[in-house]
Amino acid sequence: MISVGIVGGTGYTGVELLRLLVSHPEVDLKMVTSRSEAGKPVADMYPNLRGFTDVCFSEPDAKTLGSCDLVFFATPNGTAMKLVPELLDQGTRVIDLAADFRLQDTDEWQQWYGMPHTCEDVLAKAVYGLPEINRDAVRNAKVVANPGCYPTAVGLGFLPLIENGLVDDQHLIADAKSGVSGAGRGANVASLLCEASESFKPYAVDGHRHLPEIRQTLGGIAGHSVGLTFVPHLVPMIRGIEATLYAVLKKTDVDLHTVYTERYKDEPFVDVLPKGAMPETRSVKGANVCRISVFQPQAGDTVVVSSVIDNLVKGAAGQAIQNMNIMFELEETAGLDRPALMP
Amino acid sequence: MISVGIVGGTGYTGVELLRLLVSHPEVDLKMVTSRSEAGKPVADMYPNLRGFTDVCFSEPDAKTLGSCDLVFFATPNGTAMKLVPELLDQGTRVIDLAADFRLQDTDEWQQWYGMPHTCEDVLAKAVYGLPEINRDAVRNAKVVANPGCYPTAVGLGFLPLIENGLVDDQHLIADAKSGVSGAGRGANVASLLCEASESFKPYAVDGHRHLPEIRQTLGGIAGHSVGLTFVPHLVPMIRGIEATLYAVLKKTDVDLHTVYTERYKDEPFVDVLPKGAMPETRSVKGANVCRISVFQPQAGDTVVVSSVIDNLVKGAAGQAIQNMNIMFELEETAGLDRPALMP
Amino acid sequence: MISVGIVGGTGYTGVELLRLLVSHPEVDLKMVTSRSEAGKPVADMYPNLRGFTDVCFSEPDAKTLGSCDLVFFATPNGTAMKLVPELLDQGTRVIDLAADFRLQDTDEWQQWYGMPHTCEDVLAKAVYGLPEINRDAVRNAKVVANPGCYPTAVGLGFLPLIENGLVDDQHLIADAKSGVSGAGRGANVASLLCEASESFKPYAVDGHRHLPEIRQTLGGIAGHSVGLTFVPHLVPMIRGIEATLYAVLKKTDVDLHTVYTERYKDEPFVDVLPKGAMPETRSVKGANVCRISVFQPQAGDTVVVSSVIDNLVKGAAGQAIQNMNIMFELEETAGLDRPALMP
Amino acid sequence: MISVGIVGGTGYTGVELLRLLVSHPEVDLKMVTSRSEAGKPVADMYPNLRGFTDVCFSEPDAKTLGSCDLVFFATPNGTAMKLVPELLDQGTRVIDLAADFRLQDTDEWQQWYGMPHTCEDVLAKAVYGLPEINRDAVRNAKVVANPGCYPTAVGLGFLPLIENGLVDDQHLIADAKSGVSGAGRGANVASLLCEASESFKPYAVDGHRHLPEIRQTLGGIAGHSVGLTFVPHLVPMIRGIEATLYAVLKKTDVDLHTVYTERYKDEPFVDVLPKGAMPETRSVKGANVCRISVFQPQAGDTVVVSSVIDNLVKGAAGQAIQNMNIMFELEETAGLDRPALMP
Repeated sequence: MISVGIVGGTGYTGVELLRLLVSHPEVDLKMVTSRSEAGKPVADMYPNLRGFTDVCFSEPDAKTLGSCDLVFFATPNGTAMKLVPELLDQGTRVIDLAADFRLQDTDEWQQWYGMPHTCEDVLAKAVYGLPEINRDAVRNAKVVANPGCYPTAVGLGFLPLIENGLVDDQHLIADAKSGVSGAGRGANVASLLCEASESFKPYAVDGHRHLPEIRQTLGGIAGHSVGLTFVPHLVPMIRGIEATLYAVLKKTDVDLHTVYTERYKDEPFVDVLPKGAMPETRSVKGANVCRISVFQPQAGDTVVVSSVIDNLVKGAAGQAIQNMNIMFELEETAGLDRPALMP
Repeated sequence: MISVGIVGGTGYTGVELLRLLVSHPEVDLKMVTSRSEAGKPVADMYPNLRGFTDVCFSEPDAKTLGSCDLVFFATPNGTAMKLVPELLDQGTRVIDLAADFRLQDTDEWQQWYGMPHTCEDVLAKAVYGLPEINRDAVRNAKVVANPGCYPTAVGLGFLPLIENGLVDDQHLIADAKSGVSGAGRGANVASLLCEASESFKPYAVDGHRHLPEIRQTLGGIAGHSVGLTFVPHLVPMIRGIEATLYAVLKKTDVDLHTVYTERYKDEPFVDVLPKGAMPETRSVKGANVCRISVFQPQAGDTVVVSSVIDNLVKGAAGQAIQNMNIMFELEETAGLDRPALMP
Repeated sequence: MISVGIVGGTGYTGVELLRLLVSHPEVDLKMVTSRSEAGKPVADMYPNLRGFTDVCFSEPDAKTLGSCDLVFFATPNGTAMKLVPELLDQGTRVIDLAADFRLQDTDEWQQWYGMPHTCEDVLAKAVYGLPEINRDAVRNAKVVANPGCYPTAVGLGFLPLIENGLVDDQHLIADAKSGVSGAGRGANVASLLCEASESFKPYAVDGHRHLPEIRQTLGGIAGHSVGLTFVPHLVPMIRGIEATLYAVLKKTDVDLHTVYTERYKDEPFVDVLPKGAMPETRSVKGANVCRISVFQPQAGDTVVVSSVIDNLVKGAAGQAIQNMNIMFELEETAGLDRPALMP
Repeated sequence: MISVGIVGGTGYTGVELLRLLVSHPEVDLKMVTSRSEAGKPVADMYPNLRGFTDVCFSEPDAKTLGSCDLVFFATPNGTAMKLVPELLDQGTRVIDLAADFRLQDTDEWQQWYGMPHTCEDVLAKAVYGLPEINRDAVRNAKVVANPGCYPTAVGLGFLPLIENGLVDDQHLIADAKSGVSGAGRGANVASLLCEASESFKPYAVDGHRHLPEIRQTLGGIAGHSVGLTFVPHLVPMIRGIEATLYAVLKKTDVDLHTVYTERYKDEPFVDVLPKGAMPETRSVKGANVCRISVFQPQAGDTVVVSSVIDNLVKGAAGQAIQNMNIMFELEETAGLDRPALMP
């Protein structure tokens, strides 16, 4: 059994970690911290957990957390880097679900996140936890930077095209759509049901924090910097991301469906759909899977990829547990082996 | 391992059975029948099941079904009674999720379901599968009539009051609300997103088929016929039933919360909430649990009970599996031990 | 033309007033106040108003407001009573959409609203603006207390039964359901899309502020105090209230449908549906109308009434404009003569 | 007053025409036909119209329809072309909201709509009713082909770029998203609330009927054929289309916001938002307006346009009435002068 702690368990990423961890066969959930809710049973805030855990929120404390084998950070950006060094010193491994260790370029980090990076030595050792490209590095990592939700959907969608050099990678387009849980559980007006339901809109067109992260991933695959236009949109639903990706093909006679099925045939959590099938976000609701389809409309020179994930699972908590399973040499699918909730 | 078949696996009850059964540790899912979809992989219709089962829909056939230990019927009313006798002859046990074996009074059955009952001998032996009142009878049953969704929520909500003779049982009121999945997967205009979302309405006020079923359950507990007004409503959401129950108390000084916690303290799937907490349907989404609160507003003579379930789980497929677990002497919670999906 | 001001125009009630007033043929909208947004064009906050008004939010100021013929208060409870006396002194008439002048019993006001009433002399003259019972008094009122949303739906639903003494009025039950806009535009977690959608729940079962208001209305009709259990619920939709009302009939042979059609035959904004038709909230979305049906299930002794309104229109802004029309001797339907948005 | 008939008034486009026409100051609505509902009051099917019209559905009949000044067709594709010649003979003008007269190339029509075009002489005279490019032609048209919903949103979004030759028009991308009402009121499983809510998906990626229509419009503006990839998606909401458009700029130093505001400054129903503002579909719910923003992320060579409409209004019934107003020399905004419903 792995002993596990969660720092910041009150948000949606935190509760999703809890939902998955209380059923994980190899996990002993020892503590969940929250400054604001310390002392309160976790199940009082999230009644779906009644009967599954008696853990109460506790004050975050590096000493106590250091008694865990692994600590997940489900905190606002900038929090993990304050605590992680002290945990590493105690031999505790870390998976950060926030952005602190995602961007290797600290100038870029400061530009997009509005604060200096204060933990560069840890950053240098941190592994970007997208198992489909970094599985081996994750296995030995002390610190895993769990990818953002959009970067997971977009990255997995573009990956086979970029790896195989099939497209003009200077004019990539990612039109991404997310359910409202991506905005978190904070009390802000824009996330109210009366503001966000029965409506659809783009946001952050001028630049979203996940843009540099996606560029870093795709650039890493390409071996050179790529050109990407990334436009996120808000969908009136709770969970789910769909990314529709566009690129101009260098050659129009490649069997793209085979390229995708080959690339992902051994991946437990990437599902390339049969030709012609359309991914829908509900098919991944609550499940740690990315479903992908690839199209070449009218046999022309533009490829279209659609990639769906549950932003809270393969886009956050589920992928974090997948990384944990890899780090601790468990079955990669342990605790992640249930079908999506449909309808 | 129990070998299991499902007759009628294309509706929402069927796919929910599939979702739960593919993860059940003691179940070998052998066949799923559907006349209209025979030959098609189940996972083509329900992509959440991709990777979890290779079963294809097959033509329903009593011989083949008879090779199973247990057959679930997730069919329209009137279908099970045609096939069940032949299955029983082969020693196969049956759980019917439709209404064929729910009402012991066949005249009443004909009145509400518009067809004569053609299987009275089986009906006589059928057990009404509400484990909280009939657990022992379920254990030995050959045929279990799985309760309706509203009757489960309303029945469990009223049970402690009626059992203890605490209320005037001639003027019971059940104001019930259901998500749209209760109407099934049939292509009818009233269930379209554009008709049912962003709206709320009562329906079947003059009489709903679940009225006699609830009266039978409550009457059985009371030992005499009860008076009940039952008004169902349609809620713009997929899953969930909430029933708000009203009755006039005979005495106003009983500690109702204690009555409820005592009655259900050993029930694995009934959760009486702490005093003052409000049940919400999302706290049971995808889970086999009924959460209940009881109130006595302004310490007056009217008791108010709120009871929530997922209509597809504790109100259908989950309760059916609970019954299966009891019938086959498995852990009652086997395959039903995951928290609800929240948010 | 009537010159009109709005105090507190940033909430949902305020914007709904704006939506209706910018199209009103007899209204000159002169000012909309908001401390927090002063200086900002109203249409920047609510882009649906782009092209319909150039008004900017301004600081609330009794002098300036006093230049209007009429001022609407769409403010939190307790705000109007501070400003109203000064406005009345200047000859300006007032419609308060908050609760300041709804309860004639100031002790009860203090108990439910948690602050002392500081404006009793104005309260004594204030008219409760439910036109269907107080039309004549509204005509000459200086101050109209616009009714709450639930009290409008419940009051109009029970009215014919109470007026005609047809039911036991000591055990009335009102099971009411509201869309989330009833909770306002405040940034609170419970109103987030991810908390309130795909769920249904009761709230404030132990006592809601609209309880004494409904009791006051029904008691006024009955001529004595009534007994009422009122349970509100939250529906995952933006607009709409449905109230299902239950009472025990004194006689079971009254033609209730005729009682209702007779009572409301001259009312422009109450629509009694044909026998058997079910009210649905979407049929009143955006419109100033209450639709009602009455049922007597199984010809028994329990009457069931269903009453629907748009909580922001007949339950707030629309009813306020109806009151304005009456007060200023305009056509009662002026500016309120468009059908609901359906689907 | 113009006497008006509607053929096919039971679908969502039909009821939206009704909603808008019953309040139009210059329209006398004489008849609404529906074979299936003949004899039934329109307001029985759409209770929002109770009190606004006493018209009953009638059998479609060319003679009777020919007594109207104008007939709207809100029928399935292929219906209008059978009746229109007979109406034109009687001097009745026609606005077809279906696709019969949208594509000038009849081969293309047959390819995409699966039936031969049987009315080529009328097609030759038909005017494509996008007022922003064809206002003068609409004024004198006998037959107006009302544009599709996607073509309206995409066409108005790309128009200023194409007209001014600012982009590579061989690799245009339109990523469009529609509410479910775009699929009509037909009883099909994919439009059920339980299938379409809480989910997001692309559809018809290999080719959608609106693709040739958009290409025809954009090609007409460009003066040569354009290259377009068009991917529609289904959004879990009732009304609204958002189209996010991408193109590669020929020059990166053009003030795109000024290009758009100049192009649309005299258009009553196209609203270019202030710089940086994001269109959201709810800001046009129920209103005949297209709101547009243009972006040039990171000052690069890719332009991003977001365009929103209500698919039932500016994308169908509202635009049809706008065309009617132009054809009959009324104020272009008559009957279309109310703000969107928000929230």
